[in-house]
Amino acid sequence: MSLPAHIPDPVEGALPGPERSQAAHSGLIIDVRLSHYRRPDGTEVRREVLEHPGAVVIVPVEDDHVLMVRQPREAVERLTLELPAGKLDVPGEKPLECARRELAEEVGRAAGRWTPWGGFFTAPAILTEYIHCFLAEDLSAADGVDADADEDIEVVAWPLGDLDALIARVEDAKSLVGLLRLRAARDR
Amino acid sequence: MSLPAHIPDPVEGALPGPERSQAAHSGLIIDVRLSHYRRPDGTEVRREVLEHPGAVVIVPVEDDHVLMVRQPREAVERLTLELPAGKLDVPGEKPLECARRELAEEVGRAAGRWTPWGGFFTAPAILTEYIHCFLAEDLSAADGVDADADEDIEVVAWPLGDLDALIARVEDAKSLVGLLRLRAARDR
Repeated sequence: MSLPAHIPDPVEGALPGPERSQAAHSGLIIDVRLSHYRRPDGTEVRREVLEHPGAVVIVPVEDDHVLMVRQPREAVERLTLELPAGKLDVPGEKPLECARRELAEEVGRAAGRWTPWGGFFTAPAILTEYIHCFLAEDLSAADGVDADADEDIEVVAWPLGDLDALIARVEDAKSLVGLLRLRAARDR
Repeated sequence: MSLPAHIPDPVEGALPGPERSQAAHSGLIIDVRLSHYRRPDGTEVRREVLEHPGAVVIVPVEDDHVLMVRQPREAVERLTLELPAGKLDVPGEKPLECARRELAEEVGRAAGRWTPWGGFFTAPAILTEYIHCFLAEDLSAADGVDADADEDIEVVAWPLGDLDALIARVEDAKSLVGLLRLRAARDR
């Protein structure tokens, strides 16, 4: 078992993959395996690993607003305000292609300018999910997309002048990373 | 089944808990359940929910440096540079108590001043983990702690003057939120 190919090379250093693994649960989104790793000093450690295909998160800026989505997140029993995002669940799809698709599906927009803003692991102790972040600018209506197709998702255009108030409201890690990067980019 | 008590009230709005759930996997850190929820329009949705006790992440600032930890993360097969953090795995322990304990255990420090910096869900679509963030200042050596007890963790003091270079290296979501908040606080 190996990690998804879209994950970039390590920054601090690579560790070997598992010497052996056993499947522990096969789920709707997540598979769980128990994997055994050999440390450099010879000791063996066991880790519970949640396998995830990876994802993208998009920071869409239009007319001095950032486009957010308000949606039901049953797992945490609340509505959340998040940046548009989605899973890399189409085989072979590149992160940028996924970002284009999700931007159209979730907020009904196409972007004339895409800037890669790095990426990060959601929870590197337990989850293989790596999220690629993109800034999307020069927005226009996406062709052939019914932005209201998913009635559960409400698009919220938040004024950039009030970005700190948005950051204070958001309680989703990937969205906070994207919004705080946007804040930092505007400071420079 | 309900969410952990330490999670604050919803910002955007509450959703009802599951009408019924079935356990799907009982793991080392994560339990998985399949839960059924009733939407306001009457439709039923099914969600795979990963249960996690929650966690803390700490931004420790000492002598114009932020204290990071470099550690092996076998699940993603690499060393990572992260802020000190830890799970709320002691029953009844409050987030701030957990933060005090983790700051001592991971970097061997006690803090004279703690500032709550909000919190966030790691992955609200699938995981109940909520992470409380704290700024820790006025640091001193923690009593009775052997900071070298865990040989797998290396403490890295990173100069605040070079914070953007650190942010460019880090690939862990919770650490990026903490470091980008620190950057924003220093801008004001």
